[in-house]
Amino acid sequence: MTTRTSDNEFESQAQALGFDFNSENKIGGNYAPVILHGHEVYVSGQIPRIGDEVVVTGAVGKDVSLEEAQLAAKICVVRALALLRNQLGSLSKVKQVLRITVYVNSAHHFTQQSEVANGASDILLRVLGEAGRHTRTSVGVAQLPKGATVELDLIAAI
Amino acid sequence: MTTRTSDNEFESQAQALGFDFNSENKIGGNYAPVILHGHEVYVSGQIPRIGDEVVVTGAVGKDVSLEEAQLAAKICVVRALALLRNQLGSLSKVKQVLRITVYVNSAHHFTQQSEVANGASDILLRVLGEAGRHTRTSVGVAQLPKGATVELDLIAAI
Amino acid sequence: MTTRTSDNEFESQAQALGFDFNSENKIGGNYAPVILHGHEVYVSGQIPRIGDEVVVTGAVGKDVSLEEAQLAAKICVVRALALLRNQLGSLSKVKQVLRITVYVNSAHHFTQQSEVANGASDILLRVLGEAGRHTRTSVGVAQLPKGATVELDLIAAI
Repeated sequence: MTTRTSDNEFESQAQALGFDFNSENKIGGNYAPVILHGHEVYVSGQIPRIGDEVVVTGAVGKDVSLEEAQLAAKICVVRALALLRNQLGSLSKVKQVLRITVYVNSAHHFTQQSEVANGASDILLRVLGEAGRHTRTSVGVAQLPKGATVELDLIAAI
Repeated sequence: MTTRTSDNEFESQAQALGFDFNSENKIGGNYAPVILHGHEVYVSGQIPRIGDEVVVTGAVGKDVSLEEAQLAAKICVVRALALLRNQLGSLSKVKQVLRITVYVNSAHHFTQQSEVANGASDILLRVLGEAGRHTRTSVGVAQLPKGATVELDLIAAI
Repeated sequence: MTTRTSDNEFESQAQALGFDFNSENKIGGNYAPVILHGHEVYVSGQIPRIGDEVVVTGAVGKDVSLEEAQLAAKICVVRALALLRNQLGSLSKVKQVLRITVYVNSAHHFTQQSEVANGASDILLRVLGEAGRHTRTSVGVAQLPKGATVELDLIAAI
């Protein structure tokens, strides 16, 4: 039952954001999207990519709005959850999210990085319930890979 | 005895920085200030807030001096220690601080992020002794939540 | 055999980059370059220092090229490996690299932080084989200690 709840809620969140899991999570390059070791799982930094396209780019406070940056944070965390589900079989295996770090591509004067990160935190709680409660660090950075507006990484206990 | 030493030293450091523990560490929002899992404890990113006010804001090297940024780092780490003490009952439960990451809101030319972070490292050693020795990463970022000069997060073993 | 392979490959990579291990890894300050706890080892943020000199400084995309920044990433990761080898006796003790975070001192328009980080990832795989596969986060920051072009930290399981 719990299994179905987490995974179903995840799918409904992901579909609402436009994900098509047939084309997602192509892996390239010389690092791993997820490493599972003992009872901990690390997820690489995710940018707001859907399929092959980074869908939210630019600095918040200049190129994109707070709302668009929150959307970017949601897409990042859904990608992280998709990777966890692929790795673990079901999101019900996640015992606790330990830490997310949210890097926000920020115009010089923009100071609402926490508000941007709330987009990701809300989804973790909605999909995982109490297991989705997490510590968080959100910072404003100068630039991100491919010009992404947000990058998010995650550590969880299973 | 060790318990008294760590906790007393903490209180004396915190009082010197102006903390009033009756009003500290209000928790809002959708993430946790501390997550304890197994033998590890994660603390969310802390900014130099005392009560409701972020007391050191702006970019070091432009808006604030190195000394003010070091003060900001001290306040951040005292907040992290306060959260650990609340969670654990006593700071004597901390076996080893594993990692601090210190994000410094930096003017373009400012390259003394390590010197800023020393403010935090000194307090960890003073309060926790050998258990306060830690690995550290300090970087210069474009902006931080609420315009804070420093943000610091922490992982410890208990 | 595996021991010799990892350690020998490390030495050959390090020598190619100009390292002289008689003068390396002086430790100063109030934090630890490496903390080993249980089955995990944390390495502090490394900048591209050889001996006393930071050999690649400035923002990529303005002061230095992509290739120079990749060289910086390689030097950072070799320093991290040197610290691991000092701590563990042999790199063959590394069971899995769990996470590297690569902070890239970036000109405003530079968005190839992942390509910079590939310099480090390639060396981890070459030196450690499958144990060198890792999760990764690469971000563009405003400035780094001593003006370094790259800073890299690492968590590994042993």
